[in-house]
Amino acid sequence: MFPNYKEKGIATIQGQLVMFTSDQSHYSVKSCASICGLGTDNCVMVPSDETGRMIPTELERLIMERKTRGHLPFFVCCTSGTTVLGAFDPINDIADICKKYGMWLHVDAAWGGGLLLSKKYRHPRLTGIERADSVTWNPHKLMGALLQCSTIHFKEDGLLMSCNQMSADYLFMQDKLYDIRYDTGDKVIQCGRHNDIFKLWLQWRAKGDDGFEQHMDRLMELTEYMVKKIKEQSDKFYLIMEPEMVNVSFWYIPKRLRNVPHSPQREQELGKMCPVLKARMMQEGTLMVGYQPDDRRPNFFRNIISSAAVTEEDVDFLLNEMDRLGNDL
Amino acid sequence: MFPNYKEKGIATIQGQLVMFTSDQSHYSVKSCASICGLGTDNCVMVPSDETGRMIPTELERLIMERKTRGHLPFFVCCTSGTTVLGAFDPINDIADICKKYGMWLHVDAAWGGGLLLSKKYRHPRLTGIERADSVTWNPHKLMGALLQCSTIHFKEDGLLMSCNQMSADYLFMQDKLYDIRYDTGDKVIQCGRHNDIFKLWLQWRAKGDDGFEQHMDRLMELTEYMVKKIKEQSDKFYLIMEPEMVNVSFWYIPKRLRNVPHSPQREQELGKMCPVLKARMMQEGTLMVGYQPDDRRPNFFRNIISSAAVTEEDVDFLLNEMDRLGNDL
Repeated sequence: MFPNYKEKGIATIQGQLVMFTSDQSHYSVKSCASICGLGTDNCVMVPSDETGRMIPTELERLIMERKTRGHLPFFVCCTSGTTVLGAFDPINDIADICKKYGMWLHVDAAWGGGLLLSKKYRHPRLTGIERADSVTWNPHKLMGALLQCSTIHFKEDGLLMSCNQMSADYLFMQDKLYDIRYDTGDKVIQCGRHNDIFKLWLQWRAKGDDGFEQHMDRLMELTEYMVKKIKEQSDKFYLIMEPEMVNVSFWYIPKRLRNVPHSPQREQELGKMCPVLKARMMQEGTLMVGYQPDDRRPNFFRNIISSAAVTEEDVDFLLNEMDRLGNDL
Repeated sequence: MFPNYKEKGIATIQGQLVMFTSDQSHYSVKSCASICGLGTDNCVMVPSDETGRMIPTELERLIMERKTRGHLPFFVCCTSGTTVLGAFDPINDIADICKKYGMWLHVDAAWGGGLLLSKKYRHPRLTGIERADSVTWNPHKLMGALLQCSTIHFKEDGLLMSCNQMSADYLFMQDKLYDIRYDTGDKVIQCGRHNDIFKLWLQWRAKGDDGFEQHMDRLMELTEYMVKKIKEQSDKFYLIMEPEMVNVSFWYIPKRLRNVPHSPQREQELGKMCPVLKARMMQEGTLMVGYQPDDRRPNFFRNIISSAAVTEEDVDFLLNEMDRLGNDL
């Protein structure tokens, strides 16, 4: 865990700190680089492959490039469940590189971490996560905790206190004559805030490990149902890739383009229609399916099922409704 | 507003940025210096006077001291309502210094800002706040909005967007065919979070300006009642200073110390009793009155009335109960 830091001592470390994350990672990673004073130029975007996974050889190449400039690569963010494609970076390969160069391994499992609760789906997606120095995991996403419930986990005990403690003795008195172990205020960056983790505790008490596993498996089952229905209607829908989690990426195909062979030109046409169809959904008030471009494609739809209350009938309705609203586009 | 920055252009500014705040300010100011990469050594604590207000001549002296070291003083945090004593830094005096040296004036009115809603109490406490470049104001404190509702206000329009925008086009699409003015996500540091300001909107609709004014005046009336009762029982309670807002700072005096003249030695004795009396309150389950030391005094009690549902009878009960639980200490 960050061995160079401890062996060499902080006084010997000099030079520009640089962090690395995939070009598919959440924008908050880059935002962190801005806020904490590194600067966005020192948050290096590592190319990803066609399925949205970080390419480990590219990571190593970019680390070496910064090293030759005298910089100090210190941190890699490995995304488990990217926002758009739901892709999982290869944790073990990235962990090997972090170990080789003495870098901190952070796993951003904010979106995909819920699948840890499913024996069926946790591997190979999250294999190696136990090697992380820190992990982000948002129960308010896949696990359905109410907004907001966002957690961070560290391998090193006491790290939050040693980093964040400001010892405000007018607020966090150490001379109280009763148990102060749960006075956690001085560990965290923010002060007076919700006890957001309590919601997760209640939920876990109610559902248990088994309940959460069923929840995760059900979401994946619904996703697989949607993929099946899209493939069955391949004249009307174009599946962009087999999903790794609940993100289903696809284009809707209106009548006039159904007999046109798929090509970059057709992708451009399909992309242009996304905002128009989305506006019709909003005006009609029946659907809210998001769309976005990525580095390789123009706009495409991305459907997410994150509530176990969704049914197969809802999936059927979604696809039929998109066709009803969009077939003349 | 921060004129040097604009006139000179960013490329000409070099050197260590330094911020200033009073030694009575909230610990989160120092924490900010740590998080955003300035380092806590570059958050200079300006001495305050006996009543807890920043001393403007000390501020100017410390600014000059850093300038002679080649540093760039750029930011002053002026506290309106300190955490412990409820003191208000002299905004106009501090604003004059900020203007003189081309520095950003931030007013931390998180605690005291509610008094802006009272014509009776806003002056002189918050006089000059209109000169601030930015203001923090937490409706979840004095105004009774439910945790959490914390706001920040800037004089310069568009600043949040120009500072925080990461242009994540996969989340904040600009090609939507409907009104996106309220898609505010790209302005803020955090991503998926509560719409906490909605609570304030509802509350303001229900209470109106007049309702909030009555709320503020009532809190101050209750505070004045408490001060009066403490003075009437000066054998049992020692008022440390006349409060500027709802913070009432005092010592409780047990029987054995009632005939001892007040002195630094008696203060030490009274301070030692605070945790013991607090523990008795917690064990009895009847009161939760906080205590803390400050730079000039050992532990003392600080009572806060921030709910308009408190009554004069509650204040009487509080003082009687402290005496019941503590008179033998």
